[in-house]
Amino acid sequence: MAGITASPIPQREPGRIIRAEMAEQPGVLRRLVGQGAPAIQETARRIAARRPRFCVLSARGSSDHAALYAKYLIEVELGLPCGLSSLATITAYGAEQDLTDVLVITVSQSGGSPDMVAATEAAAESGAITVAITNNPDSPLAEVSEFHVDLLAGPEKALPATKTYTAELLALYLLVRGMHDADVSAALVLPDLADQVLGRAEEVRVLAGRYRFAERMVITSRGYGYPTAKEGALKLMETSYIPALAYSGADLLHGPLAMVDNISPVIAIVSDGTGGHALQPVLDRLRGRGADLVVIGPDKQVAAAANGFALPTHGVPESLQPVLQILPLQQLAFEVSIARGQDPDAPRLLAK
Amino acid sequence: MAGITASPIPQREPGRIIRAEMAEQPGVLRRLVGQGAPAIQETARRIAARRPRFCVLSARGSSDHAALYAKYLIEVELGLPCGLSSLATITAYGAEQDLTDVLVITVSQSGGSPDMVAATEAAAESGAITVAITNNPDSPLAEVSEFHVDLLAGPEKALPATKTYTAELLALYLLVRGMHDADVSAALVLPDLADQVLGRAEEVRVLAGRYRFAERMVITSRGYGYPTAKEGALKLMETSYIPALAYSGADLLHGPLAMVDNISPVIAIVSDGTGGHALQPVLDRLRGRGADLVVIGPDKQVAAAANGFALPTHGVPESLQPVLQILPLQQLAFEVSIARGQDPDAPRLLAK
Repeated sequence: MAGITASPIPQREPGRIIRAEMAEQPGVLRRLVGQGAPAIQETARRIAARRPRFCVLSARGSSDHAALYAKYLIEVELGLPCGLSSLATITAYGAEQDLTDVLVITVSQSGGSPDMVAATEAAAESGAITVAITNNPDSPLAEVSEFHVDLLAGPEKALPATKTYTAELLALYLLVRGMHDADVSAALVLPDLADQVLGRAEEVRVLAGRYRFAERMVITSRGYGYPTAKEGALKLMETSYIPALAYSGADLLHGPLAMVDNISPVIAIVSDGTGGHALQPVLDRLRGRGADLVVIGPDKQVAAAANGFALPTHGVPESLQPVLQILPLQQLAFEVSIARGQDPDAPRLLAK
Repeated sequence: MAGITASPIPQREPGRIIRAEMAEQPGVLRRLVGQGAPAIQETARRIAARRPRFCVLSARGSSDHAALYAKYLIEVELGLPCGLSSLATITAYGAEQDLTDVLVITVSQSGGSPDMVAATEAAAESGAITVAITNNPDSPLAEVSEFHVDLLAGPEKALPATKTYTAELLALYLLVRGMHDADVSAALVLPDLADQVLGRAEEVRVLAGRYRFAERMVITSRGYGYPTAKEGALKLMETSYIPALAYSGADLLHGPLAMVDNISPVIAIVSDGTGGHALQPVLDRLRGRGADLVVIGPDKQVAAAANGFALPTHGVPESLQPVLQILPLQQLAFEVSIARGQDPDAPRLLAK
């Protein structure tokens, strides 16, 4: 039996990197809300002193979902009308805009994308107040921006963004709250709650079994939860290659609902608050339709669905819940990808 | 054999209504660019005199894609920073925004959606200049808006929007061009070209065969063609229930590209101009990936793809090409739906 005792060839464990980066999230949030917050709040005060009247957010991929989150926050909390930038109008069509009084927030993990750097430079020349949110203070984007917010998340090596996404959400929360001098102590509970949620990986593993053979998926939400739906769909697509369609509840009822039947699973992100209430008619409609409905949200909503993941959001403001909502979706994407024999660290053909 | 000669039970022909409405498009465009244009241009001049500094567009479903088209046009041609509204921030979260100097354009076929009416009223109270683009001058939305643009498209009865979508694009073109007193004569060729394109239904029928059994689809474009990709995806979803994912070329390369393989068909909307050039690296990447690539665009691009539909865009400004690009996609959705035994007039469970 001697031959059999030879050590096995060491194999790279699929998903090793992203698993570690997901697990770092409570620590990253703790660092940001602790040592990071004062600098962000100081930046926020300096930006507010410039009295922006309109805000344009610019980002791609996961960061674009964080930007959408910020759009809600800025409109609701600051009362500033806000738009997501179409970079192409500047970088491809050479649009020359008058950006006086406009705050341009660019969100980019790496801060290295040349078209974002070019668009930010163009925005500054057109009179904008520019702020970059990146994970690299030495990046070209940080350099060309008037203000910079550092995510303090440490290097992110897996291709699908996880810890930089939740860090972006929290950094944007601190920035926007800081712009109107609002209390941010509600964020202090996030690191521990994130720890709790991530500790329930076994629950997600069971849930993932449900999607082992899913050929499509719809993810829906409203309000603050909608960016989570979009980010969750992207995670599933880039790791498991499941075509996952994210819709706001209102849009879903318009046309895409026709696609939902008893073999098209639906995941609903139900916020504990206004967004969740606004989603209720959509949930009722989906139930009537016989959809396989899984809920990520408060336990009462989970209990009324086919299955789900109950989030400990009691006492957490709705505007902070997205930081927790995305965690089980990250893990779900990871588990489905592993179950399908893929490597979530390095989706085929993508480059960071 | 007498029994067999009994007349067959009269059956409603599936897709009868939408087929008729698609066919009306050249006539609708002719009416809009002819009798409709002077009133729209006059409205445009009055809006421009108010000197808006920012623009917020508000819409849902197909109209939201027309709004995205207008966003490009407004940023490129007027240099006004522009955002798509998140209605929820106003209607659900009660955001109170300062909308002085802000032009709020609401696009809605029916003009009857209560949340849009409420949001428009709130915007006007917050100081916005409000304009409604609808197909019904007597609608509540037209009534509460300071300005109104009538689509003159006649009643639209099929659930999936077709003629009101192309009318919205053209009306927005006339409005935005009118705001900077620009010539609109380039639009005069659209009705005849639309006639030509719609006359090639047989080509689309052949193309539709390719998607008879497709279980997913990716539609991509850049710049002015991107709203077409989104609208085409919606048409396919609401009539054929194919999960069709629309991505701007830049976003596709970020993550969703992992989903594309040799059984995931891709349709690329290639504009003749800047947007088409910007899409070239994406097309090359898709070809390298072995994707089943079908192109809707200039004949040279179609010839380099697996298949496609060549558009007569020679001499048509890129900003007007979306009016033509969507036509074969409308017909494609119709043909796939009919081939699958569905009724494109009335997708399951949807209400207009």
